[in-house]
Amino acid sequence: MGYTELDQLAVNTIRVLAVDATTKANSGHPGAPMGLAPAAHVLFNKFMNFNPKNPKWLNRDRFVLSNGHGCMLQYALLHLFGYALSMDDLKSFRQIDSITPGHPESHDTPGIEVTTGPLGQGFSNAVGLAMAQAHTAAIFNKSGYDLINNYTYCIFGDGCAMEGIASEAASTAGHLQLGNLICIYDDNHISIDGDTKIAFTEDVLKRFEAYGWHTLWVQDGDHDLQGIEEAIQKAKDIKDRPSVIKVTTTIGFGSKLQGTGGVHGNPLKTDDAQNVKKSFGFDPDKSFVVPQEVYDLYGKHSSEGAAKEAEWNALLGKYAAEHKAEYDDLIRRQSGKLPEGWEKNLPTYKPTDPAVASRKLSEAVLEKIHNAIPELLSGSADLTGSNNTRWKNAVDFQPPVLNIGDWSGRYIRYGVREHAMGAIMNGLAAYGTVIPAGGTFLNFVSYAAGAVRLSALSRVRVIHVATHDSIGLGEDGPTHQPIETLTHFRALPNCMVWRPADGNETSAAYYSALTAQHTPTIMALTRQNLPHLQHSTVEDALKGGYVAEEAKNADITIVSTGSEVGICIEAAAYLKKNHNVTARVVSMPCWEVFDAQPQNYRLQVFPDGIPCLSVEVLSPMGWERYSHEQFGMNRFGASGPYKEVYKKFGFTPEGISERAITTINIYKGENVRSRVNHEPRAKPEN
Amino acid sequence: MGYTELDQLAVNTIRVLAVDATTKANSGHPGAPMGLAPAAHVLFNKFMNFNPKNPKWLNRDRFVLSNGHGCMLQYALLHLFGYALSMDDLKSFRQIDSITPGHPESHDTPGIEVTTGPLGQGFSNAVGLAMAQAHTAAIFNKSGYDLINNYTYCIFGDGCAMEGIASEAASTAGHLQLGNLICIYDDNHISIDGDTKIAFTEDVLKRFEAYGWHTLWVQDGDHDLQGIEEAIQKAKDIKDRPSVIKVTTTIGFGSKLQGTGGVHGNPLKTDDAQNVKKSFGFDPDKSFVVPQEVYDLYGKHSSEGAAKEAEWNALLGKYAAEHKAEYDDLIRRQSGKLPEGWEKNLPTYKPTDPAVASRKLSEAVLEKIHNAIPELLSGSADLTGSNNTRWKNAVDFQPPVLNIGDWSGRYIRYGVREHAMGAIMNGLAAYGTVIPAGGTFLNFVSYAAGAVRLSALSRVRVIHVATHDSIGLGEDGPTHQPIETLTHFRALPNCMVWRPADGNETSAAYYSALTAQHTPTIMALTRQNLPHLQHSTVEDALKGGYVAEEAKNADITIVSTGSEVGICIEAAAYLKKNHNVTARVVSMPCWEVFDAQPQNYRLQVFPDGIPCLSVEVLSPMGWERYSHEQFGMNRFGASGPYKEVYKKFGFTPEGISERAITTINIYKGENVRSRVNHEPRAKPEN
Repeated sequence: MGYTELDQLAVNTIRVLAVDATTKANSGHPGAPMGLAPAAHVLFNKFMNFNPKNPKWLNRDRFVLSNGHGCMLQYALLHLFGYALSMDDLKSFRQIDSITPGHPESHDTPGIEVTTGPLGQGFSNAVGLAMAQAHTAAIFNKSGYDLINNYTYCIFGDGCAMEGIASEAASTAGHLQLGNLICIYDDNHISIDGDTKIAFTEDVLKRFEAYGWHTLWVQDGDHDLQGIEEAIQKAKDIKDRPSVIKVTTTIGFGSKLQGTGGVHGNPLKTDDAQNVKKSFGFDPDKSFVVPQEVYDLYGKHSSEGAAKEAEWNALLGKYAAEHKAEYDDLIRRQSGKLPEGWEKNLPTYKPTDPAVASRKLSEAVLEKIHNAIPELLSGSADLTGSNNTRWKNAVDFQPPVLNIGDWSGRYIRYGVREHAMGAIMNGLAAYGTVIPAGGTFLNFVSYAAGAVRLSALSRVRVIHVATHDSIGLGEDGPTHQPIETLTHFRALPNCMVWRPADGNETSAAYYSALTAQHTPTIMALTRQNLPHLQHSTVEDALKGGYVAEEAKNADITIVSTGSEVGICIEAAAYLKKNHNVTARVVSMPCWEVFDAQPQNYRLQVFPDGIPCLSVEVLSPMGWERYSHEQFGMNRFGASGPYKEVYKKFGFTPEGISERAITTINIYKGENVRSRVNHEPRAKPEN
Repeated sequence: MGYTELDQLAVNTIRVLAVDATTKANSGHPGAPMGLAPAAHVLFNKFMNFNPKNPKWLNRDRFVLSNGHGCMLQYALLHLFGYALSMDDLKSFRQIDSITPGHPESHDTPGIEVTTGPLGQGFSNAVGLAMAQAHTAAIFNKSGYDLINNYTYCIFGDGCAMEGIASEAASTAGHLQLGNLICIYDDNHISIDGDTKIAFTEDVLKRFEAYGWHTLWVQDGDHDLQGIEEAIQKAKDIKDRPSVIKVTTTIGFGSKLQGTGGVHGNPLKTDDAQNVKKSFGFDPDKSFVVPQEVYDLYGKHSSEGAAKEAEWNALLGKYAAEHKAEYDDLIRRQSGKLPEGWEKNLPTYKPTDPAVASRKLSEAVLEKIHNAIPELLSGSADLTGSNNTRWKNAVDFQPPVLNIGDWSGRYIRYGVREHAMGAIMNGLAAYGTVIPAGGTFLNFVSYAAGAVRLSALSRVRVIHVATHDSIGLGEDGPTHQPIETLTHFRALPNCMVWRPADGNETSAAYYSALTAQHTPTIMALTRQNLPHLQHSTVEDALKGGYVAEEAKNADITIVSTGSEVGICIEAAAYLKKNHNVTARVVSMPCWEVFDAQPQNYRLQVFPDGIPCLSVEVLSPMGWERYSHEQFGMNRFGASGPYKEVYKKFGFTPEGISERAITTINIYKGENVRSRVNHEPRAKPEN
């Protein structure tokens, strides 16, 4: 019904392009594109609204290929529909500096919404994209202006279905009743180890039903285009639940290895590729051939998409006139820029202000700025009262029918699902109109490591509010006390790790995180109270590191972060009083930011001539970049009241003083080179 | 039926002890123990076989409290049943150096099987414990000798049920048809953020049905002891599936805040605690009181357990006579020691042997040693052909009814479930008779970070075979190329990271991993071929770092690991030939092991007087501990053929030489202090 040979030709064109590109690259995954081509054809050509000339049109339907290894499917579609992805780009598949890398990367390739490949991430991003749509619609749609009504479509495979992160996200989406989310499950029974019967025999649709999803099954996904269309239409008609359509397909359809693991991750053999082409009516000796009628077919859909965008822009124009403030807000949000003057809301502190935990300081920031930054969506992985992520009058983001919030709510209850929270936040950020911040204990950001990595790689502004950031959490003990965590994320490119020492530094951390449009931030915050430093300012803290206590003719620099800075300052006083040793103290809340400062500034902070001791109740690894000796935790922590835990490990003024004196003695008589000095020294050995 | 006031008194004693201990600690979670006391009472007193005098009896039933925050439940039970956990230990709950820390830790507390608290881990450990039982039974049980037939019981809460890791493990257990696994789901509708209706509204039992589990529901878990008993008995009767029993309970039962989040993570108020005691017939003014009849009741069960062990030991004695070899093997396995002479099977290599990828070298080791070490169970998270973790004649660990393996099989198909794989391996190792090794890409060990951390904390011998360890994986691109991963795990205490450079180093890595009885290992292995080094030996590599190319009067030390060592040796030749610069090259496959060498050895490897450049195609963070300058990846990688990727980033003999010369120039004229020298220098500035 309605499907012609032209449709079949288009489907086979996608398949053959996948064969050609993987053959030319001598690398890649032809199987998934060949199996999924029918479903993708119907989805893209019958349902999806997009304009390839403006891949950033706000109300476009979002598409996520969660099984990102099948990206030749997506690259072929982007090319055929007329995105700025040429045939040459397809020929450069998996080559250096191409826009067609081995897995889809959103920052380089037009039409790629999110960076996928690590399994389960894309599915969870899709949940975030759908949540962002629901929220943005609730905020901006007005009577007569159904401005934001796009769908989010996602394809995922068996691998994604096995990953826990996708389970978490699916449970979340079911709870949230996201009727705007439609997922196609590529049920091809093959993963890398072969038939899924060896490891994966659960009833996937029944599981999704248990989550509250609407489920459908297309039994012949290789041929039944009409069935695929009907299923997607039914899914669209169900508004109060997300839908999953199991489409049973044959991996590598057309190959003589079809239906086996042999076609999953390797190019087809030459004769096989030739036979595929022959059987699909293509010239077996030619590669990268697209019949003009396929370009025409898809071009027609793209033109319709462009027309839809034009129509939408007209509606937006009327909206601008009638709802000026909302219009301005919507446009501004898409620019990534924050409202002018928002930063005036950031609290500042005097040294005499009472000591307070930095998780509470973070709460104070959120309380002060949430009105000024309406796109900020906070939340927590079931640790709201511990993470202090919720401002007083926050409304939960919930389906209105539950009567515990609504779609316009700006507080997200992620449940105990840290990994999905990370990936959902990536999806939220990718939508383009919201900035997500999500809380958990720092130790459990590690559960979300896969998602945090993709925040950094895909350059999205996501904020991890990571409280209980050390042995300072006390009684919960070693299972909850991070040791390696900050080293881990400091080593991650394009990820800012902030560990503020007091109120002004916490405000600086938020300033930095919120203005970093293309970088995620992990904010490590204490459970225990911290005094405000004598000399901290937001401005200094924004340099990433600064001298918190200067001293002339110092014997040593002590550098520290967060909760230990105050103790180091006490240690400096102790050293002076008891040992007549002069110490200067550096606070370094963010290495990434400090490393970006000019060399002369960095040398002012860490001058030549005296040794430096670093102090942090976490793994010392990496501190060697700044300090000659390190005082940190080379073991797991201990369960007990936090002051006793600090004492047990020697993180007291006395304990730090002892290590400072040792450090001075080691380097006594040497013309010490600052660890940040990487220049030849004019007179090295004077 | 069968339950008396004494049972109720026992239940209430557990509850009151939980109230007292959290009150005394002024910290902790009374709610879960109070709600779970009835289920735990029935489970421990009616079903579980154990002997508190020998908590390591091999055939004991295993118990895992996955919601580890409720550990006062477990501590109370251990005390009451007569384990070496005194009333004073209960009074030291959550205090420094006690055996009753804030979450249960297996290495310190008798009767604690696995370290739990990070949610979802314990549940997944339980799956591993049950798998180990099935495997050990298949290997050792003989006609007339049903030697190994214990059950694994696990309690988990809503938090665990939300975590993806538990979903992965549950799907695995369902596939594996683990009839020896019985889990109690504490359905109390409360998590930290309050009622679970705000985030967790799925049908948990239906989901478990979808995984293939047998499901049961006890509707009144607060009172219906008989119903709990019947459910557990039914679960035991079902032999071909794991069982989950949903027990609906009231969190904090007895408190005036019962059924609310208020009783989850805070001690009861004084008056509330007093009222609880009164209502349970306890003296409100006394704490830590156990009625003698409760000790007697539980003591009777423990005596029966001791008798069962004695009976079992008698059976084992007969077994020893009839099946000497198996008996010896079983006893040896429990000692943690490997079979004598196993290491003779480790392959060694000559420099002239052909270049080969270290993932293949790892395969060669497994091929050679698997007969010698029968307790070694390999596996992969659906990357068998890529990780090369399967020896040729391996049999899959599978339920025999599937006809694709059997319980005696030593190759585990984990599916695309890295996090569960990590936690299941922790459970396998904790059982005491197997050594698990599991493969995935190094980048996706990060998905398992939560479990790896607990391997290290709980001191179990687990091997992560982590292939595709860098940009050297090539075309799959930045989504799959680790950058931060080794820094992360090097910073983790009690975790060995090995990155071997060739065949002899790979053998050394396995020797180290397999003989480290209390330390997990991550083995970073290449996809690409590596030449065998001229001077590598297993013996040298076992020092963690050694001079791979010595040179007299060297200008610089270049230190590297894995795939870059060979390139650095080429760079040394290039430097000599083109710049008349003399470089010595250090290979450092394992930092943890190197750091444990004597200081004089470390100074031989990294001598004073010349600067050191480190080279590794990963984050340079941490290398400052050994090198003055670092050449590494401060950004994400690129998709392309691996040699081109290496070239793009300068990891070639020419590129390394350039950085070496820069390094030499920076430190020219200085009396350079070795980075591993932390002693005062006698004549520092000569």
